[in-house]
Amino acid sequence: MSPRAAGGQARGRARTGRRAGGSGTREAILDSARQQFSESGYSGATIRAIAAGAGVDPALVHHFYGNKEHLFAAAMQLPFIPSETIKAALADGVRPPAVSAGEHIVRSALATWESPAVGHAFPGLLRSAMTSEQAAAMLREFITEAILAPLASVADEAGAGDAAFRASLVGSQMLGLAITRYVLQFGPVASASHEQLSAAIGPTVDRYLTGYLRPRS
Amino acid sequence: MSPRAAGGQARGRARTGRRAGGSGTREAILDSARQQFSESGYSGATIRAIAAGAGVDPALVHHFYGNKEHLFAAAMQLPFIPSETIKAALADGVRPPAVSAGEHIVRSALATWESPAVGHAFPGLLRSAMTSEQAAAMLREFITEAILAPLASVADEAGAGDAAFRASLVGSQMLGLAITRYVLQFGPVASASHEQLSAAIGPTVDRYLTGYLRPRS
Repeated sequence: MSPRAAGGQARGRARTGRRAGGSGTREAILDSARQQFSESGYSGATIRAIAAGAGVDPALVHHFYGNKEHLFAAAMQLPFIPSETIKAALADGVRPPAVSAGEHIVRSALATWESPAVGHAFPGLLRSAMTSEQAAAMLREFITEAILAPLASVADEAGAGDAAFRASLVGSQMLGLAITRYVLQFGPVASASHEQLSAAIGPTVDRYLTGYLRPRS
Repeated sequence: MSPRAAGGQARGRARTGRRAGGSGTREAILDSARQQFSESGYSGATIRAIAAGAGVDPALVHHFYGNKEHLFAAAMQLPFIPSETIKAALADGVRPPAVSAGEHIVRSALATWESPAVGHAFPGLLRSAMTSEQAAAMLREFITEAILAPLASVADEAGAGDAAFRASLVGSQMLGLAITRYVLQFGPVASASHEQLSAAIGPTVDRYLTGYLRPRS
């Protein structure tokens, strides 16, 4: 998006003969990432292949973007890092005593989705995720690794069993909440306060994560 | 979509000078309906205006399509009539004694969405509903009248209060289920049996419809 910065850094260029530093390099990495994620999916794309596509050293990709989730977020212009939001919401000590884990997850999600940095982009992001089978396939793997896995570990730690099923039930309700509120905007769910929504939906998330679910037959 | 049928019937033409009968007339009505729904929304569009746009008598539109919901379903190629599916699921006597209303709603929805007549079209339908603000606006009104209203009347009849909020909570979970299972296809929710899903999600629907929700502050 941004043009190569005038006078961009050239650190490392002498050593490898490859591009390094500067916003042009970052853009080349993000272009390569979008192509690799699109061709190979989120799980199949590797930092190594993305670096090769951009003509840079894999270490530079790690240096700029840390890990694959952060690189994906940058390439897709995701305005937040889902696994970090979830882990922060579930961290010890952040939750007021009277608030259940489910309520806190709903509150944290709403606060993130409606934060100044995210709010204007989120409806478009949800829409674009729905538009093609290719986008859906890429997102499916990303959701599984970055969103469902941390949720499943909550169920696992509570010894609730069937953790993957439980995590995807939570995902279905949270996705439905987001689309109802920001894309289709139907009914009072679109306008209810965070307090109302977390009180109503939080117990659902608690039950899905750690409550009683009839055993699979 | 289909061209005016060659040699289509001309019944009524002599009397009113307007088109009547024949598949060309039906197509003209559906074209006019799509235009009116798109311009005026689901609530704002009237059978009278749709008939005028097609150059036919309103009585003919009623004769062909019954009511506005059926006309909308035909114009948008909806493969089922939502309010009728919901009312049938909630009718007295159709639910096995051990199955809660919520479980029965989930089972009925899954059976409808995956029926031979609907299954191949449903993912595309969900996708197209997400693609534009105009489509979302039209769908919002349709969901409110055809889906949330019959759900709200269940909450109302049970004296649960806050019926519109309750109905939209159910809508959010059912929409999330549909998109998780048919569009994004993430996690075990995408592959779980109807039995598993109704056992897991049914109690959520029951609680949203008639269970305890903390009063709005």
